[in-house]
Amino acid sequence: MKALRFHGNKDLRLDDIPIPEVKKGYVKVKPAWAGICGTDLHEYLIGPMLIPTTAHKITGEKVPVGIGHEMSGLVEEVGDGVEHYKVGDRVVLEPIIYDGTCGACQAGSFNSCYSNGFIGISGFGGAFSEHIVVEENYLNHLPDNVSMRTGALVEPLAVAMRAIANGNVQASDTVLILGGGPIGLAITLCLRSIGVKNIILSEMAAKRKTLALEMGASHVLDPSKDDVVARTLELCEGAGGVDVAFECAGVQPAVDVAFRTVRARGTIVGVSVWEGPASLDINKLVFRERRYVGTAAPEHKDFEAVLKALKEERLKPDGLVTKTVGIHEIEQEGYKSLIEDKANHAKVLVEVGGG
Amino acid sequence: MKALRFHGNKDLRLDDIPIPEVKKGYVKVKPAWAGICGTDLHEYLIGPMLIPTTAHKITGEKVPVGIGHEMSGLVEEVGDGVEHYKVGDRVVLEPIIYDGTCGACQAGSFNSCYSNGFIGISGFGGAFSEHIVVEENYLNHLPDNVSMRTGALVEPLAVAMRAIANGNVQASDTVLILGGGPIGLAITLCLRSIGVKNIILSEMAAKRKTLALEMGASHVLDPSKDDVVARTLELCEGAGGVDVAFECAGVQPAVDVAFRTVRARGTIVGVSVWEGPASLDINKLVFRERRYVGTAAPEHKDFEAVLKALKEERLKPDGLVTKTVGIHEIEQEGYKSLIEDKANHAKVLVEVGGG
Repeated sequence: MKALRFHGNKDLRLDDIPIPEVKKGYVKVKPAWAGICGTDLHEYLIGPMLIPTTAHKITGEKVPVGIGHEMSGLVEEVGDGVEHYKVGDRVVLEPIIYDGTCGACQAGSFNSCYSNGFIGISGFGGAFSEHIVVEENYLNHLPDNVSMRTGALVEPLAVAMRAIANGNVQASDTVLILGGGPIGLAITLCLRSIGVKNIILSEMAAKRKTLALEMGASHVLDPSKDDVVARTLELCEGAGGVDVAFECAGVQPAVDVAFRTVRARGTIVGVSVWEGPASLDINKLVFRERRYVGTAAPEHKDFEAVLKALKEERLKPDGLVTKTVGIHEIEQEGYKSLIEDKANHAKVLVEVGGG
Repeated sequence: MKALRFHGNKDLRLDDIPIPEVKKGYVKVKPAWAGICGTDLHEYLIGPMLIPTTAHKITGEKVPVGIGHEMSGLVEEVGDGVEHYKVGDRVVLEPIIYDGTCGACQAGSFNSCYSNGFIGISGFGGAFSEHIVVEENYLNHLPDNVSMRTGALVEPLAVAMRAIANGNVQASDTVLILGGGPIGLAITLCLRSIGVKNIILSEMAAKRKTLALEMGASHVLDPSKDDVVARTLELCEGAGGVDVAFECAGVQPAVDVAFRTVRARGTIVGVSVWEGPASLDINKLVFRERRYVGTAAPEHKDFEAVLKALKEERLKPDGLVTKTVGIHEIEQEGYKSLIEDKANHAKVLVEVGGG
């Protein structure tokens, strides 16, 4: 079968590899649609970082590995003992891999497992393939009223839902989002789905500013033109700052704005992966009891929250998709658009098997 | 009356000033004992920072101002309308000043008031004086079984109690304290008072290491000899790190150790005031859902918690005191010991009126 695999830095290959066999407890899925994630781009440009170059502690695999982890698909075959899935079921992948035995897992923090990994990054196949075989616990049913194309957005939406949960956002809160990339936009959408109305988003790129308004931001500020700190504080009408700021850019100016715009006892949620250290004025945390909270991989309940919101049509994320490409075009058309024409794109989806 | 006042950097003077008059709702107190705080030393050495050089927003005062804010004393006179105090009552000062109208105060976060200040720093007199007159809401009753000398420790203990509350520490937690100064030691004591048994403290100074054990630390590590990260992780027996780390040193190596020793979803509590920015690996927060929480001024409920623990004899803090001085010796004997012989001292108390 065809499978896009990561062989090394800027070295993706559409390899011909054997179709994986279905074992007891495993499900074979035909990927329908799959998204290209910011992590995929990081690995391509400056990796391998998360992709294992020696045997991964859980998967035992190393490069070359199959990639793609934001996926919807159709069940093609089920192994003995599979309880919850049958041939023809429409599913989405929940790609977080954990060992179940480390201190974090023993405390129930599976998404923070010390050995963690992701299907499509750390081994166990990838979504940019004609087939993938996974244990049934890595799957969720896609509601009937949600298209396969939309299903490929469930994983990044779950990341957004997790960030919101870690920020303990309430419906009445005023929120600042720093960065209008796929995650900043997904957070905007998910905030709206839980009733948050006061959403300020800071972004420079024209296309992403338009998308932010479409996704439900109440105010879009442009750091190349606006004084984001002053305007945000004005918009908070005397509360002294926003309740929660989401730092989705991973750059110093973004975290500086977050530290200056969050109210006393407010929360900064760190969603972005940084390429180097940040320089922080810790006294801003100390004197006003502010908190800086990290978030990355979602939990199972975040997938459930997204699937429920999609089923109830409280979440309509299709506008996040700015381009679709075929399996033969992933590197040249997909990655290239997100790298060279980033300002005009949010989520690029791959039509793998389609549906 | 005699009152020690801050006139500027390294300029403290025992001035003769008029005795303040008692007004409606105010209480005149004769200070008994008062502590020298790390903030007092900061102001002396590198200030004025918090001490106002232009009219403070709430007190309207500027240098010279009376200093001393960790205080016990005896009520000498009460103004009309004072409800809770009478002549002869033994009291402790709760020095946090807030405007009650800003966004933080409106949200109930009085200790994080955007205009906040402290009696003994921002105006309204100071504890290193023969008399002080304050509104009655700045006082608390000292339990009968607690000495005036111990009463001067209530404020720093309330700071410690607030830090513990902000870290959401549970009795079964394993805790790391970075820095065995007065606040690190007070946190150790307060942790013991709420039933925490696994307390690792990192400190270099011999005297402070001894005090840490006396205050209840289960393990004392010396960063000049021990690999604090490795030893702490060993002591956590596979949990992956401590539940909570208190950063009480305000220096880069301390926060680096905190980031490497806190478990997934654990909390770093920032208690120290920094003189410059910190350099942080934000990915350590992001990938394991760690959180960095600031804490400084206590709330009224923290004073109540300390006074209750003292009354019930769950908290025996007298060992924190390494020296006592008279009101004429504050600068030469008190400040000097804490600056030039820091390693051999924790809390220095001033016997103002005594009792």
